[in-house]
Amino acid sequence: MIIVMQEDATEAQIQSVIEKVKKLGYDIHPDRGVNRTVLGIIGDTSQLDMRNLEVEDGVAEVLRVSEPYKLASRAFHAKDTIIRSGGVEIGGEEVVVAAGPCAVESDEQIHHIAGMVAKAGAKLLRGGAFKPRTSPYSFQGLGEMGLKLLQSAARKNGMLSVSEVMEVGLVDMVSEYVDILQVGARNMQNFPLLKEVGKARKPVLLKRGMSATIEELLMAAEYVISAGNPNVILCERGIRTFETYTRNTMDISAIPVVKKRSHLPIIADPSHGTGKRDKVAPMARAAVAAGADGLMIEVHHHPDQALSDGSQSLFPDQFATLMEELKMIAWAIGRKIGTVEKPNPTLLA
Amino acid sequence: MIIVMQEDATEAQIQSVIEKVKKLGYDIHPDRGVNRTVLGIIGDTSQLDMRNLEVEDGVAEVLRVSEPYKLASRAFHAKDTIIRSGGVEIGGEEVVVAAGPCAVESDEQIHHIAGMVAKAGAKLLRGGAFKPRTSPYSFQGLGEMGLKLLQSAARKNGMLSVSEVMEVGLVDMVSEYVDILQVGARNMQNFPLLKEVGKARKPVLLKRGMSATIEELLMAAEYVISAGNPNVILCERGIRTFETYTRNTMDISAIPVVKKRSHLPIIADPSHGTGKRDKVAPMARAAVAAGADGLMIEVHHHPDQALSDGSQSLFPDQFATLMEELKMIAWAIGRKIGTVEKPNPTLLA
Amino acid sequence: MIIVMQEDATEAQIQSVIEKVKKLGYDIHPDRGVNRTVLGIIGDTSQLDMRNLEVEDGVAEVLRVSEPYKLASRAFHAKDTIIRSGGVEIGGEEVVVAAGPCAVESDEQIHHIAGMVAKAGAKLLRGGAFKPRTSPYSFQGLGEMGLKLLQSAARKNGMLSVSEVMEVGLVDMVSEYVDILQVGARNMQNFPLLKEVGKARKPVLLKRGMSATIEELLMAAEYVISAGNPNVILCERGIRTFETYTRNTMDISAIPVVKKRSHLPIIADPSHGTGKRDKVAPMARAAVAAGADGLMIEVHHHPDQALSDGSQSLFPDQFATLMEELKMIAWAIGRKIGTVEKPNPTLLA
Amino acid sequence: MIIVMQEDATEAQIQSVIEKVKKLGYDIHPDRGVNRTVLGIIGDTSQLDMRNLEVEDGVAEVLRVSEPYKLASRAFHAKDTIIRSGGVEIGGEEVVVAAGPCAVESDEQIHHIAGMVAKAGAKLLRGGAFKPRTSPYSFQGLGEMGLKLLQSAARKNGMLSVSEVMEVGLVDMVSEYVDILQVGARNMQNFPLLKEVGKARKPVLLKRGMSATIEELLMAAEYVISAGNPNVILCERGIRTFETYTRNTMDISAIPVVKKRSHLPIIADPSHGTGKRDKVAPMARAAVAAGADGLMIEVHHHPDQALSDGSQSLFPDQFATLMEELKMIAWAIGRKIGTVEKPNPTLLA
Repeated sequence: MIIVMQEDATEAQIQSVIEKVKKLGYDIHPDRGVNRTVLGIIGDTSQLDMRNLEVEDGVAEVLRVSEPYKLASRAFHAKDTIIRSGGVEIGGEEVVVAAGPCAVESDEQIHHIAGMVAKAGAKLLRGGAFKPRTSPYSFQGLGEMGLKLLQSAARKNGMLSVSEVMEVGLVDMVSEYVDILQVGARNMQNFPLLKEVGKARKPVLLKRGMSATIEELLMAAEYVISAGNPNVILCERGIRTFETYTRNTMDISAIPVVKKRSHLPIIADPSHGTGKRDKVAPMARAAVAAGADGLMIEVHHHPDQALSDGSQSLFPDQFATLMEELKMIAWAIGRKIGTVEKPNPTLLA
Repeated sequence: MIIVMQEDATEAQIQSVIEKVKKLGYDIHPDRGVNRTVLGIIGDTSQLDMRNLEVEDGVAEVLRVSEPYKLASRAFHAKDTIIRSGGVEIGGEEVVVAAGPCAVESDEQIHHIAGMVAKAGAKLLRGGAFKPRTSPYSFQGLGEMGLKLLQSAARKNGMLSVSEVMEVGLVDMVSEYVDILQVGARNMQNFPLLKEVGKARKPVLLKRGMSATIEELLMAAEYVISAGNPNVILCERGIRTFETYTRNTMDISAIPVVKKRSHLPIIADPSHGTGKRDKVAPMARAAVAAGADGLMIEVHHHPDQALSDGSQSLFPDQFATLMEELKMIAWAIGRKIGTVEKPNPTLLA
Repeated sequence: MIIVMQEDATEAQIQSVIEKVKKLGYDIHPDRGVNRTVLGIIGDTSQLDMRNLEVEDGVAEVLRVSEPYKLASRAFHAKDTIIRSGGVEIGGEEVVVAAGPCAVESDEQIHHIAGMVAKAGAKLLRGGAFKPRTSPYSFQGLGEMGLKLLQSAARKNGMLSVSEVMEVGLVDMVSEYVDILQVGARNMQNFPLLKEVGKARKPVLLKRGMSATIEELLMAAEYVISAGNPNVILCERGIRTFETYTRNTMDISAIPVVKKRSHLPIIADPSHGTGKRDKVAPMARAAVAAGADGLMIEVHHHPDQALSDGSQSLFPDQFATLMEELKMIAWAIGRKIGTVEKPNPTLLA
Repeated sequence: MIIVMQEDATEAQIQSVIEKVKKLGYDIHPDRGVNRTVLGIIGDTSQLDMRNLEVEDGVAEVLRVSEPYKLASRAFHAKDTIIRSGGVEIGGEEVVVAAGPCAVESDEQIHHIAGMVAKAGAKLLRGGAFKPRTSPYSFQGLGEMGLKLLQSAARKNGMLSVSEVMEVGLVDMVSEYVDILQVGARNMQNFPLLKEVGKARKPVLLKRGMSATIEELLMAAEYVISAGNPNVILCERGIRTFETYTRNTMDISAIPVVKKRSHLPIIADPSHGTGKRDKVAPMARAAVAAGADGLMIEVHHHPDQALSDGSQSLFPDQFATLMEELKMIAWAIGRKIGTVEKPNPTLLA
């Protein structure tokens, strides 16, 4: 951390700031320039609130030199983290696709969809059992029964399962059924929940909050890792902007930014990122082209009867066509989906 | 809800939409205009996801006519809600001020600050015992011990206490100590928590999320009210924008907007809204001038030693001066702070 | 346009609104529902300010049914507009790439870069002669001399030229030298300038303003088209959000949205969209994957000596590698860059 | 400017950066810390693009220590700038109010409104003659005739006039009629226009762009001042955020921020800041309470017949009541409106 003094700061003000920093337990290195003095704080400043120094007399600005997260940073861990579970690798050469309905609705529904998305190449089965809904009057999910159905459908089709957990008290229960615990965008800064999934022994899929900076996303990951769970998958799902033609603005550039700043894998959710079916395929292709390690896509065979978010769900055949396009895009940038074989361009009539 | 068909929609498309709406259990009223057909859905559409209709063939747009919240709306409850607790009225003629440190740090600290803010006219004592911190390495609060100290300091000075609860499992415990339960900005859409404080018998202070629209804030209040607790106080505390000179952009206009849309009281938190001490007083004055029912202000006698957010805390004498200015502003718009007596302009040298 | 009356609107209020609308010259169609009355305004309401009706007594809401732009809308012109100039087609099957330096700096510089980007497959040569700079102390461009150099370098390499015009008084002069007139993001709502380029006989490349909605971008295009120039190419170049790791947030989803709403071609500028060199290639790939009709990319052989925006310029060899990746992505989604031949995967080591 | 090297930067990388900076004409002061080297650039770095250094090998971050504007900064000019014109002082003790219609529509209209707002205490008469309209089909103003009418109405009522100029070529003409030249939000970064009004001998009212940071607003002021015109009045008029209940989000906190960073006066425009009549008075009061040097308010005697923005115009009697409230708020914070006499509270029934 660097403290830049004002040009007209007095010697007494400089000394006062130096004393304060020393009292906080840090060494400090003053650099008296021609125009102004700059004070460098030495040591781990991750627990230091820079705003406490900004308000001191004579201080012009306080600048953070190192990032406030550590365990999640590329500087701490130079190589890409690859998360392995049940034969699937997330963060490696393969682009891994999770697909399934927004909410698990019935045994028939989840098995039917699971079969179709598995055939098209999805490795993970998604489906909500506890749904965060803006309105208290909306369908809130099947609960534990939904998790049982999800697990059964995933196993039958050789897939991993992923589902959201919203409460500290339910982490253990949800962990029994799913292979990957999802923390939703609205809970990205639910710190008790982050600590609790940090104690779980399942990988965590952590979605970016609608107004969260990438730095805050990495800080949230830091909560999980520092609690003991290094297997965190980040997920871009759209941020809130002034644009209203889409439900959110999917920040595709977060993908290369995270890749530079962190060793953690990052996937993208174009279904929530756009909110409308006809935007899902273009944004899924864009995410893979930009380097995403995976995708999470909502698929429903009767979207008009879906109990939630049907309007952003792909039909199974749309999903299958998309997977063919994605295979070629992955291949174009030196990655693969599902198989190392060259994609078949004749499928793309 | 109104469905606007495209100008070139076919009769078959129109019939298909009508059928779909009827199957969902609603009556529908078609209005065949010169250029296009408009379908009015009759009945309570609060549980209907309009996006499911937008994706139908031939549909140009779906428009929500009524607001998605009910119990929180002015239409449902025309008169201002006044929340009464221990002799204090929030939402009435008086502008009620909550003050205190960001976090309870010690017996001495909280009693000292409580005495000073009470003397200056604050009716509520604020102080965090469980702190939501962006970094897992920051001070996380004294927990239950902090609540005990807060309660003791509030009672000794004839004040009500308000503190944040972050977990479903802690609502009962926190309710034992505080007069008002605070739900923080990061938990505004923590739906299990909203339901749980909805069962509590203490008023709830609900802070607007950093990226929450006013509509979503009122939907969050709807969660609490529909769970059984009508005593919800809303709080504007700054939204996230592109501007970086302030920590957040305090949306003062949310105050008159909420007043029009809802019967619930709304207060403002200029400390978190700006993040810097020298901006707190101007924004506190602005909020009262715009019609806020109260304020929540951080005060600390040694802000440079505060364990959290010291840089946005006022010194006690700054707070006392601010209270005198606020009394005159309240009076200028026909309200009052603390007393009906005319404020003394000579205090404003 | 539809006026939704409040549930408790009186007959007098309804009649008053009807009278007002009629006085404004529109027919009105009242629909008296069970709960409330809805008034449909018949005719072209593009010149009607809906807010003037919102403030009438008894009015709950006013909803715009048709889009406020016409000539730019897909409804008005169902087929994709293809803009042809000097043998290049923008908006057709081919994805067209414009490349070149941020600013024209010298004869040597522009010819050198032009040669390299042409060889890699760029069809358009970009280069600023009049630069909009946030600071009055920054390099402001070579002016007319810069345009001459740009034109010469483009012709020598068989390319079209594109450069920005910032002033009404310079449109004629700039038109003499360039094949495509660029209107920059900061001038997207400079209405006199839009009208002036609307009179020019060169295609216009119109960049989206940093805080412009897609609707406003299409309204700006409407200005140009309604002034007589139908050849408008839209350009997404990043919007302003709270995220600070990138200079802007490139809104890739604007590409499929524009494709649905308008017949105009849309290209993307990942150089300004991200502001940093290492993000340009991922975002360029993403834009093509999402369906962009073209790209605009800054390339400089000595970016560290560039007089402006060197940090976001690609080196020529980076650009050449990117072009090979883009050819494969274009091919994966049924389009092409430069040639119909199958891209050579061996170039992507 | 400070260059922070990565912890693992090599000596060669450090030397390379030092060489580069020296070649750019700056002295550099290396500070070799325990963990990393920090390089301080000495001299005026306002013309240096920091991003050109960020992309050098071994560089972790580049931090700007001094603000990029000078003439507009408080550091350059410590005392408040007071702009004097025709007996009115803007930026002094008095809070100055500009009022009038959005657009000048007729002789009768502007004289009628001028008389009423003058009587209520407004010192400046506003009124558009050249209107920037999002739609090419909207009323675009009366042009020069409108300016004549505005000037006549202002003089007759002892007021100054203020009106917008949108084009370089019209600055001289508009200057003949108005006392203050307005540059609108959409033209805040129209750099040729800023330079042109910088040559005018009338004060300039510069509105903040909808997506402009405060820093960019001050940079725009720098353009005007550096071109020779020191008399710049800044104006907050709302920024673009995700909130849709208001047209813009008025950033009241910009007022104390500008006051700290700059010596220039700042006023607020609650009419455009909110877009709806019933929000204008609360936000006007808030702006004065926060320390604004003035206000700009739209007033129309027949807002329902106004040719533009009628929905955000106050009725004359609403304006008169608001002025009485504002007098008391100004007085509460040690300022005044119109007169030093104590405001009469009995007017506030």
